[in-house]
Amino acid sequence: MKISARNVLKGKIVEVKKGATTAHVRIDVGGTVVTASITNEAVDELKLAPGMSASAVVKASDVMIAVE
Amino acid sequence: MKISARNVLKGKIVEVKKGATTAHVRIDVGGTVVTASITNEAVDELKLAPGMSASAVVKASDVMIAVE
Amino acid sequence: MKISARNVLKGKIVEVKKGATTAHVRIDVGGTVVTASITNEAVDELKLAPGMSASAVVKASDVMIAVE
Amino acid sequence: MKISARNVLKGKIVEVKKGATTAHVRIDVGGTVVTASITNEAVDELKLAPGMSASAVVKASDVMIAVE
Amino acid sequence: MKISARNVLKGKIVEVKKGATTAHVRIDVGGTVVTASITNEAVDELKLAPGMSASAVVKASDVMIAVE
Amino acid sequence: MKISARNVLKGKIVEVKKGATTAHVRIDVGGTVVTASITNEAVDELKLAPGMSASAVVKASDVMIAVE
Repeated sequence: MKISARNVLKGKIVEVKKGATTAHVRIDVGGTVVTASITNEAVDELKLAPGMSASAVVKASDVMIAVE
Repeated sequence: MKISARNVLKGKIVEVKKGATTAHVRIDVGGTVVTASITNEAVDELKLAPGMSASAVVKASDVMIAVE
Repeated sequence: MKISARNVLKGKIVEVKKGATTAHVRIDVGGTVVTASITNEAVDELKLAPGMSASAVVKASDVMIAVE
Repeated sequence: MKISARNVLKGKIVEVKKGATTAHVRIDVGGTVVTASITNEAVDELKLAPGMSASAVVKASDVMIAVE
Repeated sequence: MKISARNVLKGKIVEVKKGATTAHVRIDVGGTVVTASITNEAVDELKLAPGMSASAVVKASDVMIAVE
Repeated sequence: MKISARNVLKGKIVEVKKGATTAHVRIDVGGTVVTASITNEAVDELKLAPGMSASAVVKASDVMIAVE
């Protein structure tokens, strides 16, 4: 599957924390840790676990720019 | 200003392309280029231009995880 | 690639309209037409065109519920 | 109320699962089940329950396109 | 129609600026101007124009918090 | 830090409710209460608590317009 989302950052999962319905998945992408808030179901379906290779995917319209 | 968004990826702007109302800003964050789709006004207000230091900011709930 | 997004609606593209930077892609999913606002670049990279099989992908946290 | 969101998919709620703060609501839209992640409060205020007629509402800028 | 989105801010439209595909609509909500980036089509369908009463609608998961 | 997000609504936090992973923060902006769904971690990092001055930040592409 190829997706229109412009940002697909390859990395490795470093933490998976499930809540009641929402999970937080942390993925190391080149030394920076990115946090994703996804459903518990997605965690189960994709069998996400620390150490797995995975990508953080973000639609361009969900990226903001900040300057100092 | 400190923001609740979990993901603030520091980098350098490599391209700014304004459209009729929406601009695309590309920022190199550690060798990976992230694309942001923001308003032309934000580009003007923050005076975004190639070469500037800037960060890509993404709320955790806007990050998905993909696996091969 | 498998993605954490919960909603992957299979269909057929019925219209692609590119703007200055942002394109609108319409996809018929089982008789209902879904509109996606994506970058022109994504349209080019995925070579999106009317008649193609494609899916509309939506993260669960981007879905609202409305009642009459 | 009429809303600017381009995608209003009519269907019937098939599951409501409340978490600590976030609920997952599943709605059958023409044979496809769409998952929405919304607040528990919205579930209470709209009295969402299985069997109810409801719509899944998605802003066009939150829809991605995927191809095989 | 009642919607699950937690934030419905009533106000008056002060500006509508259409681009090639994406429009920017500004709405004064109690003295603060909120900017919405929506499709040109939504502008046409809802006949949005300066002076109209309207609401800015935002899903809770799209709101961030910032502190000084 | 200056951010591209067009909407920064100043106010005062009136409620912070943490869930298992996701918190709901309510902020009074000029008499209207805005609800934000953010991570528990952001609440901890920014030490968000009732009575604090804070802003609700929303990207323009996450704002919809509704009319009666």
